[in-house]
Amino acid sequence: MVRPTRHDQLLDAAAALFAQNGFAATSVREIAAQANLTKAGLYYHIREKEDLLAKICAFSIDRILDGARQAVAEASDPRARIAALIRNHTGFFFQHPDNLVVLNRDRGALPPEARARISALERAYLDLIRETIRDGQATAAFRRTDPTVAAFTVLAALNTLDRWYDAGGPVSPEALVAEIETILCDGLEQPAFIRTQ
Amino acid sequence: MVRPTRHDQLLDAAAALFAQNGFAATSVREIAAQANLTKAGLYYHIREKEDLLAKICAFSIDRILDGARQAVAEASDPRARIAALIRNHTGFFFQHPDNLVVLNRDRGALPPEARARISALERAYLDLIRETIRDGQATAAFRRTDPTVAAFTVLAALNTLDRWYDAGGPVSPEALVAEIETILCDGLEQPAFIRTQ
Repeated sequence: MVRPTRHDQLLDAAAALFAQNGFAATSVREIAAQANLTKAGLYYHIREKEDLLAKICAFSIDRILDGARQAVAEASDPRARIAALIRNHTGFFFQHPDNLVVLNRDRGALPPEARARISALERAYLDLIRETIRDGQATAAFRRTDPTVAAFTVLAALNTLDRWYDAGGPVSPEALVAEIETILCDGLEQPAFIRTQ
Repeated sequence: MVRPTRHDQLLDAAAALFAQNGFAATSVREIAAQANLTKAGLYYHIREKEDLLAKICAFSIDRILDGARQAVAEASDPRARIAALIRNHTGFFFQHPDNLVVLNRDRGALPPEARARISALERAYLDLIRETIRDGQATAAFRRTDPTVAAFTVLAALNTLDRWYDAGGPVSPEALVAEIETILCDGLEQPAFIRTQ
């Protein structure tokens, strides 16, 4: 196991505070204290508070996209690829729930350049999901819905988990993944029979 | 057709500005100008800017919930009820896209009491979707997924439309509704055959 660096610990500390209190309401002093750094020590790592927000967002979507590419490359058919995408995204969420809260809620506070970089990564991720759905339609495994609507429907289920899912609640992480996979994959798949109505 | 009141026009003007520039960056002076009111005239309708935000959010979820209750009451079976819920929610979104942007993005700026009121309405809406899914499971029309996960998956697809859907783009509103209905309803429904794999 790779030992987290000082820099990683700093990002985790900042993500936890941003998630709890919001980006605007969190001070650099509080982040330094949470990360066991002096304010001067913190400024060795970043120029301003916005840098931390940009790093948290970029790390999150970068990691999700990398994992998704690997998951898709390893899976054998379109349904397995969508299932692997769902497991990859939820896996990141289970490990870094604070990051997704910050990415979803505080992105409006990103400086324009950072926002453009994150949006480009998100577009690449959407494209990957959409291409996977198109592949499934090409082999007739998936029904012919609009691939963009279908891709955003998949993304929506994954990107909103931080708003409601409680890992300590009645639905275990494994059950959550299985449920989402069932609903979304069966919604995408071609029924193996002619509907009579 | 009911003629919009001065008050409705004010809410529309405020929602358009909040959606475009964000709640924090919009001044009371700009809202008054957009609504053709003096600043004093505006303060006849509200005490502070937060009142407008609370009214926009409450109006939105209230209207969606009322429409959903009526839609569910009129539909004949669980699939038709979910389809009616989807049509009702997207119908509100097509008519008031700005309101959903504001509800989703600026809700953090709501005063605590207003936020509690909106959350209670949202819970009632979630409960209605969940009960509809439970009804479908009771008659074996729907497969036995966790009703809470299923309800949030339906809600996620509807609540994130304002982030990406462009009514002037390649997917018409009618097509969007049909696509979402296909993916979500088929994902919820029990397959009418034994899966062979």
